[in-house]
Amino acid sequence: MKKLGKQTIKFDNPPTVLEAATIVGPKEAEGPLAQYFDKCLEDEFWGEKTWEKAESKIIKETVNTVVSKSGIPSGSIDYCFAGDLLNQCISSSFGLRELNIPFLGIFGACSTFVEGMSLAAIFADSGISNILCAASSHFCSAEKQFRFPLELGNQRPPSAQWTVTGAGATIICNSGNGPYITHVTTGKIVDMGIKDANNMGAAMAPAALSTLLAHFQDTGRSPNYYDVILTGDLGYIGKEILTELAMDKGYNIKNNYNDCGVLIFDKNSQDTHSGGSGCGCCASVFSGYLMHELRNKKLSRLLLIATGALMNSTSSQQGESIPGIAHAISIEL
Amino acid sequence: MKKLGKQTIKFDNPPTVLEAATIVGPKEAEGPLAQYFDKCLEDEFWGEKTWEKAESKIIKETVNTVVSKSGIPSGSIDYCFAGDLLNQCISSSFGLRELNIPFLGIFGACSTFVEGMSLAAIFADSGISNILCAASSHFCSAEKQFRFPLELGNQRPPSAQWTVTGAGATIICNSGNGPYITHVTTGKIVDMGIKDANNMGAAMAPAALSTLLAHFQDTGRSPNYYDVILTGDLGYIGKEILTELAMDKGYNIKNNYNDCGVLIFDKNSQDTHSGGSGCGCCASVFSGYLMHELRNKKLSRLLLIATGALMNSTSSQQGESIPGIAHAISIEL
Repeated sequence: MKKLGKQTIKFDNPPTVLEAATIVGPKEAEGPLAQYFDKCLEDEFWGEKTWEKAESKIIKETVNTVVSKSGIPSGSIDYCFAGDLLNQCISSSFGLRELNIPFLGIFGACSTFVEGMSLAAIFADSGISNILCAASSHFCSAEKQFRFPLELGNQRPPSAQWTVTGAGATIICNSGNGPYITHVTTGKIVDMGIKDANNMGAAMAPAALSTLLAHFQDTGRSPNYYDVILTGDLGYIGKEILTELAMDKGYNIKNNYNDCGVLIFDKNSQDTHSGGSGCGCCASVFSGYLMHELRNKKLSRLLLIATGALMNSTSSQQGESIPGIAHAISIEL
Repeated sequence: MKKLGKQTIKFDNPPTVLEAATIVGPKEAEGPLAQYFDKCLEDEFWGEKTWEKAESKIIKETVNTVVSKSGIPSGSIDYCFAGDLLNQCISSSFGLRELNIPFLGIFGACSTFVEGMSLAAIFADSGISNILCAASSHFCSAEKQFRFPLELGNQRPPSAQWTVTGAGATIICNSGNGPYITHVTTGKIVDMGIKDANNMGAAMAPAALSTLLAHFQDTGRSPNYYDVILTGDLGYIGKEILTELAMDKGYNIKNNYNDCGVLIFDKNSQDTHSGGSGCGCCASVFSGYLMHELRNKKLSRLLLIATGALMNSTSSQQGESIPGIAHAISIEL
């Protein structure tokens, strides 16, 4: 591998995304991408007593599904990178405690899925054979933890996003026939002073811009190199902000840019306001829809930029702003 | 690099731990290792209004100190791995939001520091020049979040450990004159069903055993190869359990095994019960005391095994047990 500029790695022998799987909740099953998910749940509990246990089950079964689909014996998987939004990442650690694979916990809020794919790609380039990546989120556990108990029935402002209930998992290999991870651009923390925890898109858009610019500058590519540039979960508001910010910097992304949070729900019929969010948003849209499009050659050059808001409820109560981060990977056939 | 067995990587060109720094709180300053820390605070707030903000300041200033001591311009540091115990790792993300270095958040509870060093070593072996690693914890923010508000004045059972207020940071380089990270053994999640959140040593000891056995089996080494084997924060009770469990498996570690949580406080005079804990425990003991001993050639072969309890207060309230994990690195001259 070779370092390009300050933030990007280019792989001489690009790792392959061998397999992907995703399980989502009932609301995601009513959205426009339903046909691409491996499994859609009928309710938010999936037979468990709590939302946290349900989220753990979702990531566990998603990982079991991707391992099973890949045909690789789990004993031949060298490492697992995983993370989620729950305090101390308990969805991953409880869900994957029986996995019996060397485990590296990661936290990048909603950027976690691409952070895992980035680390996995670097591991693969270093000669490691098979690396598992997973991330999850759950609407109910996230609302309870970050905002208000659902039982209160609080109103949600129009800038709010809807945390995706779901998990995505992939297996990255150091050999294979693609889709290939050709570049990794790792983000810096960016804090522009946004304090509204109901407007995550605005808080994360500057971080997405920073990583987007770094990627273009480091690689010498321009927006039209890609069939699609997709952010993780900026939602409608963040998408509009990023489009404008990029234009101000001389990059026109209007024609080929979209956001996973915009794609996963139908805004008009699903009452999801500014769109989907959560680690599971980018994870399920990539592992379901995007992998399908790559395999069917409807996409051949994808820039995936997952964004994360690095706050908790205590930091907001203490008057802090919301730092953002964004990690990008190029996936090409 | 070369994979040995199932969990270990051996570096052909071992990365160097170029520099380390640590800042600790007032209680740590009264302990037996006080002389080895770069800075000891006079109180738990360090001029901030909240414990969370104080913890962020501690990790920020520790990172500034290690960068300054290293003589490497911060623009030449390629990546930063960091994490902590606070919900959504806000100590790291707020403390390091002005760092302007590509940032990869990690979570391994109290194993975070060695997880970061492991990832940094693999990055260095892949050709990356300089990688920063940091981890922090704070007694007051941890008690508030995981157990009870300090204002309640709850009694602590004898098996409880005392979360270290402090941070440690290191810079890992792909060239240099050592101390070298020669091996990395990445742990699996191990859950033996312990449910007592006031007995973390017992919950984490089986994970430490698992990684210890994997390290010996993968490398062909035996306990007496090392001058010292040090766990991160099993404390007195966990240390005793690990010693016995290892003996049952045929490995006698009695003569050269100790624990960072045992070393950092004086049990008799400091009322710290089973010893120190927290991400900052292993991070400050390594970055202060152990680096000093390595540089002065009083130690030449160290096996550092940081242990983490992968739970949160919600999981305990929901009746869950406490999964543990342990990551090991060999550091040699």
